[in-house]
Amino acid sequence: MSGLTHFDGDGRARMVDVSGKVASERVAIARGFVAVPEKVLARIEASGKGEPIAVAELAGIMGAKRTGELIPLCHPLGLDAVSVSISPGDGGLTVEAEVRTTGRTGVEMEAMTAVSIACLTLYDMLKAAARGITIERIELVEKRGGKSGTWRRE
Amino acid sequence: MSGLTHFDGDGRARMVDVSGKVASERVAIARGFVAVPEKVLARIEASGKGEPIAVAELAGIMGAKRTGELIPLCHPLGLDAVSVSISPGDGGLTVEAEVRTTGRTGVEMEAMTAVSIACLTLYDMLKAAARGITIERIELVEKRGGKSGTWRRE
Amino acid sequence: MSGLTHFDGDGRARMVDVSGKVASERVAIARGFVAVPEKVLARIEASGKGEPIAVAELAGIMGAKRTGELIPLCHPLGLDAVSVSISPGDGGLTVEAEVRTTGRTGVEMEAMTAVSIACLTLYDMLKAAARGITIERIELVEKRGGKSGTWRRE
Amino acid sequence: MSGLTHFDGDGRARMVDVSGKVASERVAIARGFVAVPEKVLARIEASGKGEPIAVAELAGIMGAKRTGELIPLCHPLGLDAVSVSISPGDGGLTVEAEVRTTGRTGVEMEAMTAVSIACLTLYDMLKAAARGITIERIELVEKRGGKSGTWRRE
Amino acid sequence: MSGLTHFDGDGRARMVDVSGKVASERVAIARGFVAVPEKVLARIEASGKGEPIAVAELAGIMGAKRTGELIPLCHPLGLDAVSVSISPGDGGLTVEAEVRTTGRTGVEMEAMTAVSIACLTLYDMLKAAARGITIERIELVEKRGGKSGTWRRE
Amino acid sequence: MSGLTHFDGDGRARMVDVSGKVASERVAIARGFVAVPEKVLARIEASGKGEPIAVAELAGIMGAKRTGELIPLCHPLGLDAVSVSISPGDGGLTVEAEVRTTGRTGVEMEAMTAVSIACLTLYDMLKAAARGITIERIELVEKRGGKSGTWRRE
Repeated sequence: MSGLTHFDGDGRARMVDVSGKVASERVAIARGFVAVPEKVLARIEASGKGEPIAVAELAGIMGAKRTGELIPLCHPLGLDAVSVSISPGDGGLTVEAEVRTTGRTGVEMEAMTAVSIACLTLYDMLKAAARGITIERIELVEKRGGKSGTWRRE
Repeated sequence: MSGLTHFDGDGRARMVDVSGKVASERVAIARGFVAVPEKVLARIEASGKGEPIAVAELAGIMGAKRTGELIPLCHPLGLDAVSVSISPGDGGLTVEAEVRTTGRTGVEMEAMTAVSIACLTLYDMLKAAARGITIERIELVEKRGGKSGTWRRE
Repeated sequence: MSGLTHFDGDGRARMVDVSGKVASERVAIARGFVAVPEKVLARIEASGKGEPIAVAELAGIMGAKRTGELIPLCHPLGLDAVSVSISPGDGGLTVEAEVRTTGRTGVEMEAMTAVSIACLTLYDMLKAAARGITIERIELVEKRGGKSGTWRRE
Repeated sequence: MSGLTHFDGDGRARMVDVSGKVASERVAIARGFVAVPEKVLARIEASGKGEPIAVAELAGIMGAKRTGELIPLCHPLGLDAVSVSISPGDGGLTVEAEVRTTGRTGVEMEAMTAVSIACLTLYDMLKAAARGITIERIELVEKRGGKSGTWRRE
Repeated sequence: MSGLTHFDGDGRARMVDVSGKVASERVAIARGFVAVPEKVLARIEASGKGEPIAVAELAGIMGAKRTGELIPLCHPLGLDAVSVSISPGDGGLTVEAEVRTTGRTGVEMEAMTAVSIACLTLYDMLKAAARGITIERIELVEKRGGKSGTWRRE
Repeated sequence: MSGLTHFDGDGRARMVDVSGKVASERVAIARGFVAVPEKVLARIEASGKGEPIAVAELAGIMGAKRTGELIPLCHPLGLDAVSVSISPGDGGLTVEAEVRTTGRTGVEMEAMTAVSIACLTLYDMLKAAARGITIERIELVEKRGGKSGTWRRE
């Protein structure tokens, strides 16, 4: 399928060959949003940083490390840094993850996975208090390093 | 924190005790949406069912089985059935997952995780063809079984 | 695809629904063979039970427990017993694994996986001493329990 | 080896067969202690419940769920409840874990693993502040349920 | 045990020390064969590339990434590329896997594991349609890079 | 929290950024002790190296490879060598693990984890023969390489 680099000429899925690439420092930042009713949000904010937030940040960090196992065609790779921060805001919780590596391939999927697992963890802890909450939007914010250089969401 | 069942009176996170619950048949259905530019979508549809779709459906099924490892306070549990189906539609791809178990706790998180991993996998395979695509909305559609009975998103 | 129970009417892969099945005791026995040059085989036998054999038996037992993660459409399930025994014989090492569960689905894949991982582990430890050795044959020997009853290889 | 139930008559390791046992409710409580210099301990207590404590409690809960993967001859099994609590005290931090299941085998190893992973996580976070700290003592406190009944450390 | 590099002078298993080796590009190709009755094979070929084949190829790729977890004495390492291709042929399905890395140790076990997991996955999907099918032969085809240079099966 | 490098200025847990560090050879040695009644110890020693010892050594090696998954803020990294040796002695079994890597961060946690998992595995296999045995002390013995240089327990 033309343009889909994970498939060869016969349409067969494969892990893209990065052996010819140069190892370099790479960074990716992703972001997500979980819509939460004001009443529940107030309760989380009242507890300061809040336990559900700390639990979900940690789950996101740990999730980033499992990316290669979860996403079939992702390269398994070492990570230099992972941080996840969750902020209560207008109508919900914003999750942001930043991942760094020194390698032959980027960490876009690691940042996206960190955000997804953190969102799922928030959902899990809040679902009894707020039925029907929604994970709204998970997206890349920025990507630096490697041959394609810097990309920033406008 | 009142109303947040995953935390005890001291605000300490814990896996909720389900030993007193009765094992029963439980079902959960979740749904997600990945926004994809029409040009890329057309290319996927042209290939019939499409390889990226088959890869992502499988990743979602496998992801459901890892829920207990990824979501800190989820119970590890056996699953009776998992299915994930992805359909191209207006402006993107809709992912739907259904999970069943016979157990003391539901499979809401397993269905949500299946959808999330399938969405991430689609994102991974399409990101070179369509920079900046977004996972828009991951949500529960339906939940049946257990003490709280049936819930359906309106 | 007719006759292939892991695919629905649209050819979509899924984990088969076993929620309607009755939980019962199930057993599966599988077997494999790794061809090893006599010289290397003699060295293993000289050491009594032999360390490579003990390591591979253990790897097989641990591998059985990962079946649900490795085989995409397998059900994750608890196991009641796993044993793996490796015997030096004519021209190589015979691996046999027996797995038991009390559940809604059988443990055929767990026994096959235990044998495969034990064979791979033998290969790993012997490959420096005997280049080009081959895993010859991995097959089910017997299966008991469940609706389809007992099956034995003739 | 007589008295060692994990080995058969030939000295071969195996997962003990529990298929003949009755599924029942089982509980295990384990405890550990990490010796920490007073200066570092004071810093942790000053922050109230303290972030390192919350992180380690969560790591312990998640570690309990991986017991079957880590301990070669342990049965993989579902868990009904896991809680880990860490208290600063005289000369260090006391970790206590309680695990429950309804099954054919106990959760003694799950409780011991939860404590071990929580202790390792405390060590990891404190090692830069306090070189050479020691995990002192990991032990079972209590075990209830199953054929052997209740056991309590004196 | 002389000649068995995974064991020290006391017969104790260990992960061989590769810290003194130079990181270099390494490739390994392995192959396997699953014997399948003509009737079932025809059904797979009729569906073009065939769903079971796509599922098993993906399982093989994902399996390669788990090699370090499954094979006790294997080094955990990053991978540069993994591809698995399955071809229907005379009397069955041939599986071939190619794995690349840039590292201090080769990827022979990763290629062998990819083939094994792909064969097991084919077996899993075909077992209901063809009882008693056999995985016949899993072997290394070629190995390039590192101190020992190129090896090719004759 | 000052002095706790795993937490940022807001008290948020994160994986410390090592992207600015130089990759170098690093070694860590850790040690643990499991107290075992003389009667049981004699039985283990009578069997020569002893099966429980071989099983626990292997579990320790495999455990070292899972460190990044188990300890929330640890970096996932490749390992160059892992060895675990268990010796019967006065009043119990001493476990020692040595781990090597070439990387941007050390392997102190990998050595500590290897010892912990080996101790837990010994406990698991001996618990039926010797109720109430205790894991006494898990500690770092030595650490070499990296910016902080060599550290040895006095």
